[in-house]
Amino acid sequence: MSEGLNMSRRIRRTAYTDRVEREGVSGFSVVNHMLLPKAFKQSVEDDYWHLREHVQLWDVSCQRQVQIVGVDATKLIQLMTPRDIGTMRIGDCLYVPIVDQNGGLINDPVLLKISSKKYWLSIADSDLLLYALGLATGLKLEVIISEADVWPLSVQGPKAEDLVANLFGEEIRRIGFFKFDWINFKGTKQLIARSGYSRQGGFEIYLEGKDLGSELWDLVFKAGEKYNIRPGCPNIIERVEGGLFSYGNEMTRENNPLEIGLRKFCSLDGSVEYIGREAIEKIAFEGEIQQIRGVVFAGPKCPTCSVPWPVVLDGKKIGQLTSGMYSPRLKANVALGMIIREFWDTIKVVQIDCLDGLTRQGKLSNFPL
Amino acid sequence: MSEGLNMSRRIRRTAYTDRVEREGVSGFSVVNHMLLPKAFKQSVEDDYWHLREHVQLWDVSCQRQVQIVGVDATKLIQLMTPRDIGTMRIGDCLYVPIVDQNGGLINDPVLLKISSKKYWLSIADSDLLLYALGLATGLKLEVIISEADVWPLSVQGPKAEDLVANLFGEEIRRIGFFKFDWINFKGTKQLIARSGYSRQGGFEIYLEGKDLGSELWDLVFKAGEKYNIRPGCPNIIERVEGGLFSYGNEMTRENNPLEIGLRKFCSLDGSVEYIGREAIEKIAFEGEIQQIRGVVFAGPKCPTCSVPWPVVLDGKKIGQLTSGMYSPRLKANVALGMIIREFWDTIKVVQIDCLDGLTRQGKLSNFPL
Repeated sequence: MSEGLNMSRRIRRTAYTDRVEREGVSGFSVVNHMLLPKAFKQSVEDDYWHLREHVQLWDVSCQRQVQIVGVDATKLIQLMTPRDIGTMRIGDCLYVPIVDQNGGLINDPVLLKISSKKYWLSIADSDLLLYALGLATGLKLEVIISEADVWPLSVQGPKAEDLVANLFGEEIRRIGFFKFDWINFKGTKQLIARSGYSRQGGFEIYLEGKDLGSELWDLVFKAGEKYNIRPGCPNIIERVEGGLFSYGNEMTRENNPLEIGLRKFCSLDGSVEYIGREAIEKIAFEGEIQQIRGVVFAGPKCPTCSVPWPVVLDGKKIGQLTSGMYSPRLKANVALGMIIREFWDTIKVVQIDCLDGLTRQGKLSNFPL
Repeated sequence: MSEGLNMSRRIRRTAYTDRVEREGVSGFSVVNHMLLPKAFKQSVEDDYWHLREHVQLWDVSCQRQVQIVGVDATKLIQLMTPRDIGTMRIGDCLYVPIVDQNGGLINDPVLLKISSKKYWLSIADSDLLLYALGLATGLKLEVIISEADVWPLSVQGPKAEDLVANLFGEEIRRIGFFKFDWINFKGTKQLIARSGYSRQGGFEIYLEGKDLGSELWDLVFKAGEKYNIRPGCPNIIERVEGGLFSYGNEMTRENNPLEIGLRKFCSLDGSVEYIGREAIEKIAFEGEIQQIRGVVFAGPKCPTCSVPWPVVLDGKKIGQLTSGMYSPRLKANVALGMIIREFWDTIKVVQIDCLDGLTRQGKLSNFPL
């Protein structure tokens, strides 16, 4: 399902929008008040196969960077997340769930430590900047919080490393998973991380300086020709199969980090002080009442999931799915959602109600699907 | 310009989305992670004429209600806005710019005082809830902050009052501008305000209870037939002519309330304590360096304004426009934007660069255009 998107300045263009338009973008989503390309000339299924074999260039500028600088930067960020950031080193990327006083998820960004007093939070779809600003103002912390002039460009797929090494040097290959380093581009120093919103491997270039966008796109795209590069975007089939969750889809402020499988990232021994600690500890002690699971289910190709789909067992609702798509590889529908604890280990057949009047049956699955 | 919008749960449907789809919605925008219908079957120009003569029903659910309840509710809200809310009465609606410590605009909601300890902030496109939550947490205030289960439905146009009075009783006519009262609907008490995002008059029903959406829509739509009702949406021609600004378009955190003409709403005598007071007082003392103005300009119909258009005088950039459209009534293009102080009173001809390679000339104008 795709309807018209009315453009305005408020739906911000990125450093690469001119280029994705030139490449024939046919659909967008809106994330952080910014355009996220979601469809090009090929089908989602075709893009899925391509992503698994070659390399794609994604405009993920909507992963805005909330920059926090100052003597209290570490303190402020630690207050916002149950994950212990104390051992984080410069050059690390860390997935940090951000929670409110009840443990409810506000965002699930990747934290980049640029220096001892400077961080970027590479955010999902909520104005985390405003939460950080409110907290810092209320606590009178010495920090400067801004949206950095940074435009992530993602190079994803099995050929991404060869492409990036070819362009920026062989030392790129030594960057570890969820680590970053610096490259030279047109006389500027730019951050590159081994990360990205797929399970196919790849890098994200955190381009600083919007005006450089078209040149960077063109450089990577041209060099990618021999690797069969394509413009692309996060692929819903690939991410659902891979168990990559999406804030606003799989989780909202109604959910806590334990429900999305992040118990291991939550400090539970009282050694770290953060907002929501009591709530998180209580949930951890009592056990979360639901958790994300994958579902593989048969039947006709499922529609777009724009409202949660009930999962039913023996006439009882045992959960809901929030992202789903037909997988041409598994030759079945795949989906993600919250399943109530008592039913996690079921091997029983469940019914999926895609709200289109059809009946579909399947089973829960661990990740990857 | 309208491209495809990819749907997902994250782009939330409203209490009325089923109904606007039935009515043939053809384009959406996304505001506060929620669908805002932006186009139906008729053209924007046709809708413009209709809105000025008849009555329209708008799904403005994306005006989310940030509910703040508690003994510190008034204190928290006053901290967030330069406008003195001390004299506000229950039943009042108040336009309250929200600013950060530098006076930068975070949102420009309408504040509704439901009781002495309960407010709704009817917000524009930014997660004001997160800012309020951060502040309240940092300051340890006794408040509960949530997104209310409230779905504003707007009835706009010169026939709106007759329609609403016909449906809910003649006493509706006694509700003053920017005041609210309560109506009965299917055994529930619902808030109705004389307000709305047009200059044609009208009401907004703040429906509490998402499940009641379709019934309310159907009730108003059916009763509206004799008034020539249509499904509609905020009309860009009408709002630009009327000088109604849009957060994210005409203003961002880079702007302050004085720049959008709100000096009269800013407490400048030190009698009210709020975040950003020193910054606002300094701007007020020195005078804002730019301010919103309208521009009426000739030439071919302007395109959609998705990046600011430079305004040029004698080869020098004197401002930028952020929303614009051709007005069939004025038989000219109309637009809104920031103009540098030295050029506010110019009667000179300025050049508008709509970034489409064409030259257009016009003049600044006061509101309404």
